[in-house]
Amino acid sequence: MTTPADPYLLTPGPLTTAATTKAAMLRDWGSWDADFRAMTAHLRRALLEIAGCDADAANSEYDCVPLQGSGSYCVEAMLGSFVPRDGHALVLANGAYGKRIATTLRYLGRRHTVHDTGDYLPPRAADVERLLAVHADITHVVVVHCETSSGILNPIEEIAAVTARHGRRLLIDSMSAFGAVPLDVRALPCEAFVSSANKCIEGVPGFGFVIAKKAALAAAKGNSHSLALDLHDQWDAMNRTGQWRFTPPTHAVAAFIEALRLHEAEGGQPGRLARYTRNRDVMVEGMRALGFEPLLTEAWRSPIIVTFFSPAHPLFSFERFYELMKEQGFIIYPGKLTSVESFRIGCIGALDEALMQRVVQACGAALSTLGVPSGAPAHAASSFESDARIFA
Amino acid sequence: MTTPADPYLLTPGPLTTAATTKAAMLRDWGSWDADFRAMTAHLRRALLEIAGCDADAANSEYDCVPLQGSGSYCVEAMLGSFVPRDGHALVLANGAYGKRIATTLRYLGRRHTVHDTGDYLPPRAADVERLLAVHADITHVVVVHCETSSGILNPIEEIAAVTARHGRRLLIDSMSAFGAVPLDVRALPCEAFVSSANKCIEGVPGFGFVIAKKAALAAAKGNSHSLALDLHDQWDAMNRTGQWRFTPPTHAVAAFIEALRLHEAEGGQPGRLARYTRNRDVMVEGMRALGFEPLLTEAWRSPIIVTFFSPAHPLFSFERFYELMKEQGFIIYPGKLTSVESFRIGCIGALDEALMQRVVQACGAALSTLGVPSGAPAHAASSFESDARIFA
Repeated sequence: MTTPADPYLLTPGPLTTAATTKAAMLRDWGSWDADFRAMTAHLRRALLEIAGCDADAANSEYDCVPLQGSGSYCVEAMLGSFVPRDGHALVLANGAYGKRIATTLRYLGRRHTVHDTGDYLPPRAADVERLLAVHADITHVVVVHCETSSGILNPIEEIAAVTARHGRRLLIDSMSAFGAVPLDVRALPCEAFVSSANKCIEGVPGFGFVIAKKAALAAAKGNSHSLALDLHDQWDAMNRTGQWRFTPPTHAVAAFIEALRLHEAEGGQPGRLARYTRNRDVMVEGMRALGFEPLLTEAWRSPIIVTFFSPAHPLFSFERFYELMKEQGFIIYPGKLTSVESFRIGCIGALDEALMQRVVQACGAALSTLGVPSGAPAHAASSFESDARIFA
Repeated sequence: MTTPADPYLLTPGPLTTAATTKAAMLRDWGSWDADFRAMTAHLRRALLEIAGCDADAANSEYDCVPLQGSGSYCVEAMLGSFVPRDGHALVLANGAYGKRIATTLRYLGRRHTVHDTGDYLPPRAADVERLLAVHADITHVVVVHCETSSGILNPIEEIAAVTARHGRRLLIDSMSAFGAVPLDVRALPCEAFVSSANKCIEGVPGFGFVIAKKAALAAAKGNSHSLALDLHDQWDAMNRTGQWRFTPPTHAVAAFIEALRLHEAEGGQPGRLARYTRNRDVMVEGMRALGFEPLLTEAWRSPIIVTFFSPAHPLFSFERFYELMKEQGFIIYPGKLTSVESFRIGCIGALDEALMQRVVQACGAALSTLGVPSGAPAHAASSFESDARIFA
């Protein structure tokens, strides 16, 4: 069987985008031109609306700053711009993206404490409360909304509440959640959050964005370690000129404008969440019927991406399984857990439940080709001790 | 007259790309997948070949590291990765991009000396020689290949020779030159240079790349101020896994692969230079006939972008001129000089001499609509004193 020309991406970004989103890239735009400046203004406004802000930036407590690069660039920009040089950040880590936040702070030379709950467990308000009480000098709490390493949806509402109660500031990496999972700044007190063009808004990769309190953006002047990643400077220049400081990914911006139109047409965040939830439920039910077990209990399982234990059967090989899925037109994702063999299937992108049923059928066919019986026992999860470490 | 659906960009990036380059973006790619990893390997190899390196990376003294973001991100990555924390960089500035290099070094806290020759004059070997003799602790010389602020083509060959003779290291911002203007590392001793996807290779914006000595990349470990912009880390991860560390702009990469094919089909760097040179010559000749005078003497005028003095006639307004050109399907570029009214017309992108003749006709029609006679006197250039300042 040959590889289909354009396989579906069951991956949490890059993901499968709509045909009209890609078609919006069939034109070149001058980044200085008024038409493109209007596109930039439109996307900033639309993102503020999705976050529950007043779309009239003049009335809003928040503003939106798009930034060239991948989502991790935006996370670094947020940390470098908002955590003061003499600040202290509490990083709530339960996977690769939380750990990357700690690595970034180490590069920046900003004092940080890591509360690591391992691959399976969310950070909880009681633990944060205890840590904030012990470390009175913690200025910022940093949390990952949906940690795609495992697919866990972290309880940012209770983290936000305890952070606010202690008078500290909250920074959220909502990369793979914003646009589908609710994140309304009216209900969720936060200093700033970041997301990217090619997650739940379903654009193509090339830029991300930060939604932050204007007061935080104003106070960030002179704080950044980097010119390219200086959110204050990008914000200030964009508000003065309507332009990005450096060449923007014009085609990715044009695609994003179309992706925003499709997002709104689907009913905005609630509509998108409903489709992704159906995608997940159909897929998990089908995978369970094939004998695959999800890593996480239902309470923490996101509608973004689901981790499954690999069967422990000797004939199962992820590499072969991946190729057999690809031959059927589906790109799945390897696991990213430290201690157990697993793989991941994403629920986001221009996919629906009929497609997810085809994914399940393809998994069944792949197992059958491998000679692995349905219901073979899975690799067992190992235990993990939660800990907190301080880095200065 | 209405705006044409897809105007030509007479701007030095974003620029007008070929239809097949844009069409390559009509597919989604999984960044982890082997097909995409092969695309990344191909683009690294092809860029090394254009730079005169052995395309077999194992045999080459140099390697190619693509990096997400705009070209200026790559310049910052080069400076942060290669200038040691106790180093001292001599920045040869004659326009906005040279000044941005100095600004970047200020963010990074790296000692630097700026030799500023103003808007019109190139840095010369004799001046560099004198500065290197005075500042024995200068470790790196940083020069802009084509400074698009004015369109000047700086004499990097003589700068490279004097830098090497004094045992210092050369870093080149070849953003708008590489791929058309010769930059062969066999003839030009340099530590590293950067360029971007959407300049003379004619891809779409979204990433840039650094071509650097492997010894410099190896020695850069631990030197970068930024995780996102750490060239050592990107290089090391890419060589180990074939992947970009963070989500790459997959569509821009796919477009670049097609752009590289077209570059090679045109005869590579010499073929592209020949077309851009014809574009420039046809355009400058036509603009002169209309009475427009180029800023630079012929010796320093690049085939990338040309700056013209604005007519001093009271009926001339750049804003109106810009709109009249746009109505005819052409996006031109405002001037970026500090001391004289000017505008710029780019020669790069998917444009040929027939198109450049239409550009000139459109300029004539715009002048006529404005009521400005051909041959109206231009704004005069002011004088500029060269200076050198030290920042620690």
